[in-house]
Amino acid sequence: MSFSFTLHATDGAARTGSISTARGTIRTPAFMPVGTAATVKAMLPEQVRATGADILLGNTYHLMLRPGAERIARLGGLHRFMNWDRPILTDSGGFQVMSLAGLRKLTEEGVRFSSHIDGSKHLLTPETSMEIQRLLGSDIVMAFDECPALPADRATIEASMRLSMRWAQRSRDAFGDRPGHALFGIQQGGLEPDLRAESAEALQAIGFDGYAIGGLAVGEGQDAMFGVLDHAPAMLPADKPRYLMGVGKPADIVGAVARGVDMMDCVLPTRSGRTGQAFTRRGPVNLRNARHRDDPRPLDAACTCPACQGYSRAYLHHTIRSGEIIGAMLLTWHNLHYYQELMAGLRLAIDAGRLAAFQAEFDAFQNAGDIEAA
Amino acid sequence: MSFSFTLHATDGAARTGSISTARGTIRTPAFMPVGTAATVKAMLPEQVRATGADILLGNTYHLMLRPGAERIARLGGLHRFMNWDRPILTDSGGFQVMSLAGLRKLTEEGVRFSSHIDGSKHLLTPETSMEIQRLLGSDIVMAFDECPALPADRATIEASMRLSMRWAQRSRDAFGDRPGHALFGIQQGGLEPDLRAESAEALQAIGFDGYAIGGLAVGEGQDAMFGVLDHAPAMLPADKPRYLMGVGKPADIVGAVARGVDMMDCVLPTRSGRTGQAFTRRGPVNLRNARHRDDPRPLDAACTCPACQGYSRAYLHHTIRSGEIIGAMLLTWHNLHYYQELMAGLRLAIDAGRLAAFQAEFDAFQNAGDIEAA
Repeated sequence: MSFSFTLHATDGAARTGSISTARGTIRTPAFMPVGTAATVKAMLPEQVRATGADILLGNTYHLMLRPGAERIARLGGLHRFMNWDRPILTDSGGFQVMSLAGLRKLTEEGVRFSSHIDGSKHLLTPETSMEIQRLLGSDIVMAFDECPALPADRATIEASMRLSMRWAQRSRDAFGDRPGHALFGIQQGGLEPDLRAESAEALQAIGFDGYAIGGLAVGEGQDAMFGVLDHAPAMLPADKPRYLMGVGKPADIVGAVARGVDMMDCVLPTRSGRTGQAFTRRGPVNLRNARHRDDPRPLDAACTCPACQGYSRAYLHHTIRSGEIIGAMLLTWHNLHYYQELMAGLRLAIDAGRLAAFQAEFDAFQNAGDIEAA
Repeated sequence: MSFSFTLHATDGAARTGSISTARGTIRTPAFMPVGTAATVKAMLPEQVRATGADILLGNTYHLMLRPGAERIARLGGLHRFMNWDRPILTDSGGFQVMSLAGLRKLTEEGVRFSSHIDGSKHLLTPETSMEIQRLLGSDIVMAFDECPALPADRATIEASMRLSMRWAQRSRDAFGDRPGHALFGIQQGGLEPDLRAESAEALQAIGFDGYAIGGLAVGEGQDAMFGVLDHAPAMLPADKPRYLMGVGKPADIVGAVARGVDMMDCVLPTRSGRTGQAFTRRGPVNLRNARHRDDPRPLDAACTCPACQGYSRAYLHHTIRSGEIIGAMLLTWHNLHYYQELMAGLRLAIDAGRLAAFQAEFDAFQNAGDIEAA
């Protein structure tokens, strides 16, 4: 099946839809768990699927270094390698190599950098990024871009955005025609509305299967991010998916969906799970805290995930504090379950035209304190 | 249901049977995965059960220090705490505190020691060990004993064994009458047949629900261990289960079963799984080895575990080398699956009176090299 996006319903700026791919359908708004090194850390792929995930994200930077894109291609591609037969989106590697302060050099051609694993030298360009993502077998390929950390001055943001737009064209040219695979462009422009608009126009002139909103969740704070999201999604075509990269906390996700975002990804639920931070209807809960030591209650009595169905807060506390792998397994599962349940709730609310009520209830719960009154 | 042992079949010294407990039946010969700190590391309990395990082992020493036996009792006992509703056997803590070289002091009363976690002072005696195992809710309680590392001189082994026999009586007295819970005595005596016989007689004079063979797998080597096992099981009652503590490699297990052992436990399959060592029909395989880097084949094409069904050697190599948790999860699962399959094979062979043929085939396979010829 070729790649397509179908809008189902709208509620204000928010919308539900479905993305069809050769490897299955993605219900939107969608949250994509991050499988950096060909694994969603501490989870088996069938467990990730059981939480409700329709698609995973893989990291080009990590995979090109270890085990290597050519090796993954020889082994039948990333899906087969990691035992996940549903859609995979790969990032371009651009964002992560730009984070290698001191270890990379940016030119018009691309980015030269040294591996954080063994110091070996590599070059990422729009052309090599497209080739690596092709070797991985990614269903949704991201254009190669770069973005400065915020705050940055306007001149820096403008120059960076225009470079990314030239790279977007080179990515499009290098991607070529690959039936069943999609290429997404990435809007840049920092917090500057006119630069965001210029970027959106440049991308649409090139033409992509979907459009990401990049350069956010890089230190600007939620207010500034929502400020951009009040305008940026509408600059992008309504009939293509809009993907907000690297977001975020549950409240960020709700706010982004309300502003017209269809797809998101973030390491937060998985990384936090490994360190004992749980996300719940009633806000975040730090299981490392000694107050849970003797608590026989589940993390969330209303949650149907294995961690909440089978274990006490005391057990989660014990295993996280003892560094036991099962603590990371259970809390990662809970967090991904919670995130997917949140997405399902958002989709139902939008379909029913009651997103405002959903948001009000979400906010009230998040501030209610983490344990139900007796 | 009260504790009982039923013999099903014998083949030479080997036997099959079943142990009935209030929490379910244990098929013997049985291998017990080790759940040191209220978790079989890197496994969910339902996954452990899916490998075929009928019973787990918990470590009194670790659990008394963290999270604490009183805390586990307040939380409903170890079964509920760790979400495992089938039988649990707990060791007495004796073996592990004796391993704390320099941090413990042995007297007639018991062992004073300092916690390896926080340096806090503790006392383990036959009486406190029975109390801790009662608080944990263990189904099979082990008498408190001590044993020297081998080699040791005869006088040391003799004195140690006699102390353990006095402690066995105190354990029996302190255990009292607990319907549905069993108490096992532990034979000591090192490699000395007459001391083993003296110990077996002393234990039977006291009377236990089962008898362990202790003081082996402490550095004496397989030949010396099998030398003891050629005689020691027959010194113990035929109508009670015989438990060989801390054993072992697959070949140790096969040899011990052939010599009349009914139960075993070992950290080897779980610990090895976390470091990339797999046990297979065709011998051990170190997945860290670079020869697996590009290998699309499963670890064992004939194995039905999730690691072998879903993943290549290349993937297992990649995740183990990258320190990804899924590598530990998959290889631990494989190893426990292999161990339980080995036990099932042994039980079938004994029931069919063809253990010798099973052993010959086991030996031939173990030495065949780890990949089937094309």
